[in-house]
Amino acid sequence: MYRLIKQSGNARLGEFTTVHGNVKTPCFMNVATVAAIKGGLDAYDLSGIGCQIMLCNTYHLHVRTGDETIRSLGGLHRFTGWQGPILTDSGGFQVFSLAKLRQIKEEGVHFNSHIDGRRIFMGPEESMRIQSNLGSTIAMAFDECVENPAPFDYAKKSCERTTRWLLRCKEEHDRLNALCDTVNPHQLLFGINQGCTYDDLRIQHMEEIAKLNLDGYAIGGLAVGEPTEVMYRVISAVEPAMPRDKIRYLMGVGTPGNILEGVRRGVDLFDCVMPARNARHGHLFTSKGIINLSNAKYETDMRAPDENCDCPVCRRHSRAYLRHLMKAKEVLALRLCVMHNLYFYNSLMEKIRYHLENDSFDSFYEENVTVLDKRCAD
Amino acid sequence: MYRLIKQSGNARLGEFTTVHGNVKTPCFMNVATVAAIKGGLDAYDLSGIGCQIMLCNTYHLHVRTGDETIRSLGGLHRFTGWQGPILTDSGGFQVFSLAKLRQIKEEGVHFNSHIDGRRIFMGPEESMRIQSNLGSTIAMAFDECVENPAPFDYAKKSCERTTRWLLRCKEEHDRLNALCDTVNPHQLLFGINQGCTYDDLRIQHMEEIAKLNLDGYAIGGLAVGEPTEVMYRVISAVEPAMPRDKIRYLMGVGTPGNILEGVRRGVDLFDCVMPARNARHGHLFTSKGIINLSNAKYETDMRAPDENCDCPVCRRHSRAYLRHLMKAKEVLALRLCVMHNLYFYNSLMEKIRYHLENDSFDSFYEENVTVLDKRCAD
Repeated sequence: MYRLIKQSGNARLGEFTTVHGNVKTPCFMNVATVAAIKGGLDAYDLSGIGCQIMLCNTYHLHVRTGDETIRSLGGLHRFTGWQGPILTDSGGFQVFSLAKLRQIKEEGVHFNSHIDGRRIFMGPEESMRIQSNLGSTIAMAFDECVENPAPFDYAKKSCERTTRWLLRCKEEHDRLNALCDTVNPHQLLFGINQGCTYDDLRIQHMEEIAKLNLDGYAIGGLAVGEPTEVMYRVISAVEPAMPRDKIRYLMGVGTPGNILEGVRRGVDLFDCVMPARNARHGHLFTSKGIINLSNAKYETDMRAPDENCDCPVCRRHSRAYLRHLMKAKEVLALRLCVMHNLYFYNSLMEKIRYHLENDSFDSFYEENVTVLDKRCAD
Repeated sequence: MYRLIKQSGNARLGEFTTVHGNVKTPCFMNVATVAAIKGGLDAYDLSGIGCQIMLCNTYHLHVRTGDETIRSLGGLHRFTGWQGPILTDSGGFQVFSLAKLRQIKEEGVHFNSHIDGRRIFMGPEESMRIQSNLGSTIAMAFDECVENPAPFDYAKKSCERTTRWLLRCKEEHDRLNALCDTVNPHQLLFGINQGCTYDDLRIQHMEEIAKLNLDGYAIGGLAVGEPTEVMYRVISAVEPAMPRDKIRYLMGVGTPGNILEGVRRGVDLFDCVMPARNARHGHLFTSKGIINLSNAKYETDMRAPDENCDCPVCRRHSRAYLRHLMKAKEVLALRLCVMHNLYFYNSLMEKIRYHLENDSFDSFYEENVTVLDKRCAD
């Protein structure tokens, strides 16, 4: 399903084929936690800003409105109106970051819902069933997200359990896909590499799960507080153990600079809440660095947020207007800032692909890796 | 500037010409309080849902970001990107409903800003200057909005002062329009009829201000708590005193039923926050009455909010999805509900015009005046 088109060092230009359409990689997935992009963007807005894959959260959809209900309505594609590929996470990350009173056992995790406190159990089979009900294009395996830092012994044991969970995920996933009334019988399954910041654990785990011949492989459990350099080191360490003919996904990363570094180390897929979270604070990504709309100098600045950007926001609105909306706490500020930031990310990936195609990725990387994460001087 | 095309009883089909384009009447103005529609709609969204006039609030824009700043940026049209007519209210209503520690004097009103408490003065001249700075298409005269109920004596005195204020408004408005650097030198001025619920005061005041040959006349100070029947009675009483060749605006009204009643009594223009406010509570106007998305029966209802509506929301999304978004407190719920409700209002006006044109207004009125304000049984 993944086709490597061209390589520049470790950076890969590729194409990923799914039943819901093809994806050009490297690609940034746009996060729609509860089947909606934060800031009031719907599926039709996403089409207009270059989104290729929408990412929805299994845990959130399970606890609110419910995957059974969404299944009865025809799955996430019919529910949201988004026709392209949808990736659902496994629920693991939210279980470990949001839920309360967790109890991890071999069979799975008992926890309290962050919404109403009711006791929920989720294990590999449950995660697969929920994702099958949602009918996503890509399901993620259920794993344990270990906190950073973690003692080696715990990390090792957790890793081994995550491998055993992955085997159960695969078995259940195969069973569900084979049922006659499955929403998406072509659902893909990605495995997740864990091992905290221990290179040897990471590599060993990756080699182990690579044997399962899954549809893709993710690096999980990074960008959870460790220094950026450690994250880069882990990616570089584990990359050689990742199958070359499978798509690779670095979960929850990151800034534009992080993404450039990830691509350079051989990553194909990214996702992050940063475009939306920064938008909430009036921080806009631009080709010259980050603009903070709170800055008084933008009050009378009638230039587009990014003069080099042709997104619907930059074509139509000024920094002054966005700042005014933000100060007035208008929902429109959030929508326009999220729209611009997501477009920025999607178009950054398009530029990366263009430069990979045209053998100029290295110079593009050099010119942008520092600039894009810094404050815009303009 | 107002051309009466056709009349059906007191109901009027007309056209209103402005420097920012022509308006077909009867017309509902879409409220963009601080130069943004609540719920994250921008000027370009408004174009897509049949909006003819955008209404902005003078008081809000004066206290936040400031009319001087907006003037320096080229006025509201350049600021928001909306190219059609903009009406600005006088600030009077907000001064009397939002501001604290009011002191009303002959020269104007001293009050404390509802945002930072700072002492502000606004009188007829100030209101005109602010609206001139904003560069709106239509400025509203500065008046006193008297609370309901009000003693006759107070109502009478207030009415007389509002007349004196109107004269000062006109003089200042003429002066501002004549300046060489005015944002919109073609700005129109509407007078506002007051007199609480006293028919004789209303008529007397209307006759008084009609003499000034203003660009339009509004009925203010209604829909402030009096029974609906009283409001209708006042409109019917004052209407014969309103110039036939001038556009007529009923301020802050109302439900679809109220609007039908207003049109039947000879009103041309309406505005109300109801489409947005109801949207916030998940109440959707439909051709069969009001839908409350909180109702559990909509959880699995994949029908469009209004099956007879071709707005962007009804063409794309289901009741089930909107309900899910509302329950999850997603901003997208608000945006989609506001978009649908505003479209509903704009298209209701279009239908009214169609039926006035085709001599079927009476039957359209009969079929809809009760249904539209009631809960949808469907």
